[in-house]
Amino acid sequence: MTSSIATDPNRLLPAETGTRTIARNLLALVEDLPIISPHGHVDAAMLADNTPFPDPATLLISPDHYVTRLLHANGVPLEQLRVGGTTEVSPREVWRHFCRAWKDFDGTASGYWLRSEFVNVFGLDDAKISEETADSTYDAIASRLADPDFRPRQVFSDFNIEVLATTDDPLDDLSAHALLAADDTFTGRVLPTFRPDAYIKFDAAGFAERVQKLIDSAGDGKSGYAGYIRAMENRRRYFVEHGAVSADHGSKTAQTLKLDEAAARELFDKGMSGSATVEEADAFEAHMMYEMARMSVVDGLVMTMHPGVFRNHHPGTFERFGGDSGHDIPFATTYTEALRPLLADFGTAEGFHFVPFTIDETVFSREIAPLAGFYPSVYIGAPWWFLDAPDAMLRFRSAVTETAGFSRSSGFIDDTRAFCSIPARHDASRRIEASFLARLVAERRITEDRAAEIIVDIVDAAPRRAFKL
Amino acid sequence: MTSSIATDPNRLLPAETGTRTIARNLLALVEDLPIISPHGHVDAAMLADNTPFPDPATLLISPDHYVTRLLHANGVPLEQLRVGGTTEVSPREVWRHFCRAWKDFDGTASGYWLRSEFVNVFGLDDAKISEETADSTYDAIASRLADPDFRPRQVFSDFNIEVLATTDDPLDDLSAHALLAADDTFTGRVLPTFRPDAYIKFDAAGFAERVQKLIDSAGDGKSGYAGYIRAMENRRRYFVEHGAVSADHGSKTAQTLKLDEAAARELFDKGMSGSATVEEADAFEAHMMYEMARMSVVDGLVMTMHPGVFRNHHPGTFERFGGDSGHDIPFATTYTEALRPLLADFGTAEGFHFVPFTIDETVFSREIAPLAGFYPSVYIGAPWWFLDAPDAMLRFRSAVTETAGFSRSSGFIDDTRAFCSIPARHDASRRIEASFLARLVAERRITEDRAAEIIVDIVDAAPRRAFKL
Amino acid sequence: MTSSIATDPNRLLPAETGTRTIARNLLALVEDLPIISPHGHVDAAMLADNTPFPDPATLLISPDHYVTRLLHANGVPLEQLRVGGTTEVSPREVWRHFCRAWKDFDGTASGYWLRSEFVNVFGLDDAKISEETADSTYDAIASRLADPDFRPRQVFSDFNIEVLATTDDPLDDLSAHALLAADDTFTGRVLPTFRPDAYIKFDAAGFAERVQKLIDSAGDGKSGYAGYIRAMENRRRYFVEHGAVSADHGSKTAQTLKLDEAAARELFDKGMSGSATVEEADAFEAHMMYEMARMSVVDGLVMTMHPGVFRNHHPGTFERFGGDSGHDIPFATTYTEALRPLLADFGTAEGFHFVPFTIDETVFSREIAPLAGFYPSVYIGAPWWFLDAPDAMLRFRSAVTETAGFSRSSGFIDDTRAFCSIPARHDASRRIEASFLARLVAERRITEDRAAEIIVDIVDAAPRRAFKL
Repeated sequence: MTSSIATDPNRLLPAETGTRTIARNLLALVEDLPIISPHGHVDAAMLADNTPFPDPATLLISPDHYVTRLLHANGVPLEQLRVGGTTEVSPREVWRHFCRAWKDFDGTASGYWLRSEFVNVFGLDDAKISEETADSTYDAIASRLADPDFRPRQVFSDFNIEVLATTDDPLDDLSAHALLAADDTFTGRVLPTFRPDAYIKFDAAGFAERVQKLIDSAGDGKSGYAGYIRAMENRRRYFVEHGAVSADHGSKTAQTLKLDEAAARELFDKGMSGSATVEEADAFEAHMMYEMARMSVVDGLVMTMHPGVFRNHHPGTFERFGGDSGHDIPFATTYTEALRPLLADFGTAEGFHFVPFTIDETVFSREIAPLAGFYPSVYIGAPWWFLDAPDAMLRFRSAVTETAGFSRSSGFIDDTRAFCSIPARHDASRRIEASFLARLVAERRITEDRAAEIIVDIVDAAPRRAFKL
Repeated sequence: MTSSIATDPNRLLPAETGTRTIARNLLALVEDLPIISPHGHVDAAMLADNTPFPDPATLLISPDHYVTRLLHANGVPLEQLRVGGTTEVSPREVWRHFCRAWKDFDGTASGYWLRSEFVNVFGLDDAKISEETADSTYDAIASRLADPDFRPRQVFSDFNIEVLATTDDPLDDLSAHALLAADDTFTGRVLPTFRPDAYIKFDAAGFAERVQKLIDSAGDGKSGYAGYIRAMENRRRYFVEHGAVSADHGSKTAQTLKLDEAAARELFDKGMSGSATVEEADAFEAHMMYEMARMSVVDGLVMTMHPGVFRNHHPGTFERFGGDSGHDIPFATTYTEALRPLLADFGTAEGFHFVPFTIDETVFSREIAPLAGFYPSVYIGAPWWFLDAPDAMLRFRSAVTETAGFSRSSGFIDDTRAFCSIPARHDASRRIEASFLARLVAERRITEDRAAEIIVDIVDAAPRRAFKL
Repeated sequence: MTSSIATDPNRLLPAETGTRTIARNLLALVEDLPIISPHGHVDAAMLADNTPFPDPATLLISPDHYVTRLLHANGVPLEQLRVGGTTEVSPREVWRHFCRAWKDFDGTASGYWLRSEFVNVFGLDDAKISEETADSTYDAIASRLADPDFRPRQVFSDFNIEVLATTDDPLDDLSAHALLAADDTFTGRVLPTFRPDAYIKFDAAGFAERVQKLIDSAGDGKSGYAGYIRAMENRRRYFVEHGAVSADHGSKTAQTLKLDEAAARELFDKGMSGSATVEEADAFEAHMMYEMARMSVVDGLVMTMHPGVFRNHHPGTFERFGGDSGHDIPFATTYTEALRPLLADFGTAEGFHFVPFTIDETVFSREIAPLAGFYPSVYIGAPWWFLDAPDAMLRFRSAVTETAGFSRSSGFIDDTRAFCSIPARHDASRRIEASFLARLVAERRITEDRAAEIIVDIVDAAPRRAFKL
């Protein structure tokens, strides 16, 4: 096992000897720093209840659409992977499918962190993951998962996580977060994140009922659009009181729009009655992005935005397996004109933080870096969808740094629901940051002393700064 | 000549010594494998008839618009290059023009394979290609071309070509292919490819007459749109019977559209009568892409698509020299929304293979890799227009691999009409694949053992898999 | 100071030893060549009058929006930087703000040349630039600026500038240029550039008055659109007579359009009366780009185009501080279809030179290189906005070279108003060209002999060729 690339001290570092040495030295400064994860999808209740982890397939494969999609592409039907709650096969059979296709993950981002997780968290020998050994690796992981020491809270501590943000429904009572905050035996910070997408997109399933419930429960007795806005404000405040530092928005595009109240109300009413066109739904979402920024200026929640993904591209798969089943496909997204209404009014507002993420690499150098290079509110979001992809991370740094330097970015975001993958992802990020900086040092663009300061800033101070931690 | 970069064993490989050694070892595994060329523009009749090659300029310069365009940009009028059938100057004078400008090709993709071809196929000393030696190099090539051993069939064999696909008109009788298939002395496979562009684009010269001929000859007596669709189906089947494995489409964009039969018929009738608008022509082409996919599901032809090129950008040049005269210019193309109608209905259809190519690099990571990372039907087309450009190939692999791995791509496509350049192009591709994999090994992202498996898969198995060979 | 990265002979060169050695050898061939700067924003009057330089902050910080924007992003209000003529604080206080934030420039393009300028022009020890030493570095620079030997003309000579183009209003009398041309003691060439943006964009402040003045003074007695066109022609000729070699256009997009005279006149009249829509203003600008090309064919001025920037993105900042205050943000720009009207009519016109610049990197390989790889008139503009950004320059060369080689580009453009930064920018460019070529040599793609010829051509011959110098 000493020869595994998952434990190789030079993994993900540059090949050129001199540069690699610099990278190793830089990495040493940050590899033991605590993990700060200001955006992700881990379930707070799992930590609050310290729920034992499920079987290996249910933990590692079935819910992770980045993993199941590539198996699907290579011929494994999703029902053979227990995707979307299907139960045609046993978890063990899911694992066998995965092992059979394991080699297809070589070179992928998922492959990097899966390998690291298998070796470093579950103690597997990655050279021996194969169809032949599927049952024995399944048993080995299952045995580890059954270990009473391998429970969420202990793992949280073992992973050296200091801050973990979850993603939550606006009407969530946040009791799990409250329980954790009140528990002196749990020292990490688990913070809720306000995520109102399903209350903003007219085409979200059950939109009208959900919104009515929001208004009824938090609208201070107001009705319609006025009650809706009030309820949003109230629930955001509730989140702030429960430790939230940010509100996240998976908007269709980056478009923002300032409507007067009458126009907004008219769209809202159409949305509630199910009579809005696609254009009207888009306009309302753009308006609400503006409103969310306005609220952020007041209540201080950092505003993050994740636009540009065509959700549920394949209708047949969506019908059978539901959302998050592997066919969310990015499309071209632009920010310069789209964000102008929001930034014109709030771009220089005191204390406002706005973090645009993108899955369209073309905007890194063209739009995102110049925006963050001027507006005090704009922090460059980590390269969404390429977060743990080494080459993509390097392209990201190369694209944004020459315009905006190192001080304007969000820090690493793992954005994961795969709890046990968190250390692998942050490790990959730190190695790539070290690699990028080492190249700049080796090419005599920055000094080694400054690189040392910068890597600590990127890993530790940047997320605290951007997310007000 | 031993110092020529065209014969240097390290050509196109990384400079860093450790990485280069790994690349050399990987290359050794594939450099002698047979050539599989599933898409290109060589003329089957040339092989069937074993026609002697023409003079050097007519073989190497005049018909290759990637070569003539750069000469034109640097001031050589196209009539001085015998482009488009012009005959103002002698072939020897064309060659002199080329030699005068030879240095301008340094660093270009065309320059790489031309140099390789000159040295490795024609035995020139590339250090001595210049205006001064133009006549002697012309004579040297001409002498080689006059050699009775240097005929298409012998060259085909010397090049170690196993499969060569041509590109053919739907009404071609494929007699050349039949002759080759029936000839026991010819052991290669020369496969036709169904290319119906000129029968789909309303603005193709002679569209209505051509389509009427198609209907009359293969429409089973039906007329109009019904006859048209039937004739397409019949001619595709004819191609399948003559060994075709794919149908290729040079569509304007990647747009697909499902029209009902009445709407399609209405557009078709307008196209036939010459009264369709540009929008209607585009809609019909988009609909026919959908239809072609439907037919592929039935008859098994792999569907390839080459969208996104503004053909014949300069009207004056087009009028005088016709198409393929060097001014086809790419434009921004998107796939995620455009392909949805097609993929919604056929993306998971049993046995359907769809290979989108692109000349818009921005979609590699944003759209193509995610689509191929989910849909079993989608194979990532090799980087069209950058097929033999080393840096562009490396950008391609870097962009798609972290999402889709190595298992979802088409393998190398040479797409060439320059028969004698085929080995140089495949050699360049193999060297770049070795370079990319060697870097991943050197950076400890994949193991050297897996890299060895992967490069053999990429070079040999991938094209067989994607193109059902 | 010997350890400063600003004086390190290996600065900006590749880390790999073999490649670095090649780069050093290539660099040696060009590092002492004179500076040719065919496009920039230095004030000719400063040279004509040999005006002493102002204080350090007024020279180096306040007017440079690439510098002030990053300070602003990190929390320094623009009025603390004396931007836009504000005078709330002293120049010394501006310098203190800058020193406090100096570390934020590490890794940025501005940081590279500022460091070089501080060390190599002003003799600072860059390791000691900090908040603590702000007053002493301010005094050191001020002392250097007060040196009677440090005047614009002497600096011009010390910098080894051979050609410097300025950017000028069409009604400028060019007396400063005339004075310099007539002065035998001044041996450099300072050339005016015709820049008519403010006379073409209907929304430019004071458009109608300015245009009327143009017509009155140069319209040969004609009025309206006819007088306008005549005046443009006349003023261009005046510029030619005063040494101008190019006309520059900061158009909104790359769109061009050929209108008949009646249609153009109608738009012009609406623009003059303030009644034009945004679409009409855009159409008129597109038409005028076509007209400018037509005039270039006649009078020989090289046409350069800088489209694709959303000017003055933040309204509040624009109102208070005016234009060029750091919030010009690029957006997606396309060229293939947009330039077609212009290139269809003038793309192969004898002697016409057209240099498109872009801030949208996606068009380097997709559109710009293919256009320049065919049209004799099209020269690939240096990577605008990334002109002195090492990684971006390398991406640029990688993107365009494999299609268009090295013969079709404009050569380096510094585009700067920061006179004292000129040597640092050209030095960075030469180092990056050497780095790129060295990699091609090390990877055995081109020979070292050819690389030596190419780098001299790029640095010296290319700008002379593209700009007819």
